[in-house]
Amino acid sequence: MDHTEPEPRGKPDPSRWAAKAWALLSAVRSQSPLVQCITNFVSMDLMANTLLSAGASPAMLHSVEEIPEFTPHVHALCINIGTLSSDWVPAMKAAADLACKSGRPWVLDPVAAGASGFRLKTCLELVELKPTVIRGNGSEITALSKASLASCKGVDSSHKSTDAVEAAKSLAQASGSIVAVSGAVDIITDGELVVGAHNGVAMMQRITATGCSVTALIAAFVAVDPLHAFEATALALSIFGIAAEIGMKMANGPASLRMHLIDSLHGLDEADVLSRVNITSFS
Amino acid sequence: MDHTEPEPRGKPDPSRWAAKAWALLSAVRSQSPLVQCITNFVSMDLMANTLLSAGASPAMLHSVEEIPEFTPHVHALCINIGTLSSDWVPAMKAAADLACKSGRPWVLDPVAAGASGFRLKTCLELVELKPTVIRGNGSEITALSKASLASCKGVDSSHKSTDAVEAAKSLAQASGSIVAVSGAVDIITDGELVVGAHNGVAMMQRITATGCSVTALIAAFVAVDPLHAFEATALALSIFGIAAEIGMKMANGPASLRMHLIDSLHGLDEADVLSRVNITSFS
Amino acid sequence: MDHTEPEPRGKPDPSRWAAKAWALLSAVRSQSPLVQCITNFVSMDLMANTLLSAGASPAMLHSVEEIPEFTPHVHALCINIGTLSSDWVPAMKAAADLACKSGRPWVLDPVAAGASGFRLKTCLELVELKPTVIRGNGSEITALSKASLASCKGVDSSHKSTDAVEAAKSLAQASGSIVAVSGAVDIITDGELVVGAHNGVAMMQRITATGCSVTALIAAFVAVDPLHAFEATALALSIFGIAAEIGMKMANGPASLRMHLIDSLHGLDEADVLSRVNITSFS
Repeated sequence: MDHTEPEPRGKPDPSRWAAKAWALLSAVRSQSPLVQCITNFVSMDLMANTLLSAGASPAMLHSVEEIPEFTPHVHALCINIGTLSSDWVPAMKAAADLACKSGRPWVLDPVAAGASGFRLKTCLELVELKPTVIRGNGSEITALSKASLASCKGVDSSHKSTDAVEAAKSLAQASGSIVAVSGAVDIITDGELVVGAHNGVAMMQRITATGCSVTALIAAFVAVDPLHAFEATALALSIFGIAAEIGMKMANGPASLRMHLIDSLHGLDEADVLSRVNITSFS
Repeated sequence: MDHTEPEPRGKPDPSRWAAKAWALLSAVRSQSPLVQCITNFVSMDLMANTLLSAGASPAMLHSVEEIPEFTPHVHALCINIGTLSSDWVPAMKAAADLACKSGRPWVLDPVAAGASGFRLKTCLELVELKPTVIRGNGSEITALSKASLASCKGVDSSHKSTDAVEAAKSLAQASGSIVAVSGAVDIITDGELVVGAHNGVAMMQRITATGCSVTALIAAFVAVDPLHAFEATALALSIFGIAAEIGMKMANGPASLRMHLIDSLHGLDEADVLSRVNITSFS
Repeated sequence: MDHTEPEPRGKPDPSRWAAKAWALLSAVRSQSPLVQCITNFVSMDLMANTLLSAGASPAMLHSVEEIPEFTPHVHALCINIGTLSSDWVPAMKAAADLACKSGRPWVLDPVAAGASGFRLKTCLELVELKPTVIRGNGSEITALSKASLASCKGVDSSHKSTDAVEAAKSLAQASGSIVAVSGAVDIITDGELVVGAHNGVAMMQRITATGCSVTALIAAFVAVDPLHAFEATALALSIFGIAAEIGMKMANGPASLRMHLIDSLHGLDEADVLSRVNITSFS
């Protein structure tokens, strides 16, 4: 894509963010990046359909036997630990390691990171493999931030804030990853800058795998602009939220919203994007 | 919830059952019970969406590593053996055992119990772990009832009746579980009392995972009223059937019925429930 | 079904193919063949719903423990390697071997056959077990054809054509299977005769698991007419495409197309089928 325009870094300029959103979505549609997903059983269907409707190419391939051959050729990798079991961990680590070593962006979704020691330990080991982006909800990011800081710096007790923004900033600083926290407003930070993405509708929380799916969309957006992962992350969240907003106008409940969201993501045009992207500064 | 009103036990009083149905659905919505599902790959998506649309919180978590930490905190557990393989059995047993020991209700869906010796043996071992409720179709309950009686009492040959009602009563008596048999009329029994839930539409049989999903809904209902599992089971079946009846009015086939069913479950109001609950006595 | 009418073999006669299509769909609806699917995690839901909406009975059962008891009783078997891992290979081989030995038709979907050596090797081992039908896209069939010829005859270098039709014919000759290549026009060959099925819409490519699902539908069609697998394969592809064409009239994007396709498959009537089947000769 054209990198001559100044990036919308720093204080958000609404029209610049909106233009960049449209540029990134257009790039996904024209380049159709190959996004490998090692994800949970619940989300595979919606995640693959989210990527397809956005114009990307999903590859739902997780066996440790083929990662050495396959992963170096993907444009981005998405790892989600939703239905984690120990036999999947080696493939997750191998793929993340290869992505990291071959300079491919990769995105971590630390589902229910705080639900068990096994889950938290796996997340921390994956964070060591330098994810480009980590996206979770407030509880997940807070759990990961505390543990990450504790394991890296022994400063667990110094972090008493339960504020997800502070947790996200700390995790971003400790990990070097862009960190996104989904919520009523999505928070995105690189450890210093913080922006909020205000698109989306509350009913998305009543549909399983929407969080997982937007993480995959982030991977597709970062794939087409790996040097600006902060912006790509914020705008993938915004675009997915816009698709939900438009879908919500036709929905009668969570199942029809799910359908209309995917249809809308497929059909989004420039006017939809330019008029609806809503990114604000939190710094 | 309020336990001062008399329970609708014994001879069904239509208005009392309907009021209880609305009370239970309202309790699921307000308490959002955490329901752990160890289920088959086919049903995970619809099951999670059924729970979310009813107001409950699904946790699709199955690894044996995290069950000791996680399962004691859930409000109910749902185990479904649909895509059974031997590596999942230890987690199923560990979770059922923990649920039983920690006094959490748990529900078993013995999918295709009679399809193989391996499947039947696994079911029988799970029945030993005292499920609060067992829900299956007529063939599954009959297979389980015969084998259960055979293994418990050596009286296989004494049970020649293929009547699902008798099989369900026998299984309930042998296991101590509430037993539900899905069909044109759903049968629910505690081994003595038998009621029929008459809600639902025939086209549900043309949608995969509707049976699995109503089992998860039973878990959510039992979670908010564990002392009255018989009523909660009958009314979860009735509520799911009502959602299908309302959804059917908008459906053009099985896929749109699936969507409208979930939307309707999310949107059910008191008038829908009070006017439609249809429970009758079979005793 | 009635086998007294001449089969539509050789030069396609449009009205004869259309009549046969309706006869096969009617047979699936009336006989409800039991189709065992050992498939990938992404497609299980849509595949089961495709079979149910066509009138068949899906059995999503994959554990090696129960295949010896279960597989000999199914009417057809569908094996799809989409989310392949080494622990699933023994069950795939055992089921294919049993199907072959007990004279049951079985269908192979070699998803991403060329993506890794592990995947290709597994496919070739499965091809040795005599699939009745192999269905893939052009890349998959080409990869399999080249490797199959290489391993069988050491003539890899002699096949420079990248034409999917030639690859399909070669693979059919080398394997003894009917080979189908999905694309803008679906190609079906037994190694000599080649026909094209022209039904379908482009947007199907933006829905995950439509290819997997039509493979399962082929299994259902071959189940009711195992002696004419060539015709059954071509007509299953045509029927699925017709359901998509009708669904497309109501769709606003890939997710609503997915829903309407399944609804349409369920509702297809004789007039729809007779007026739309479009099979032409490529020989």
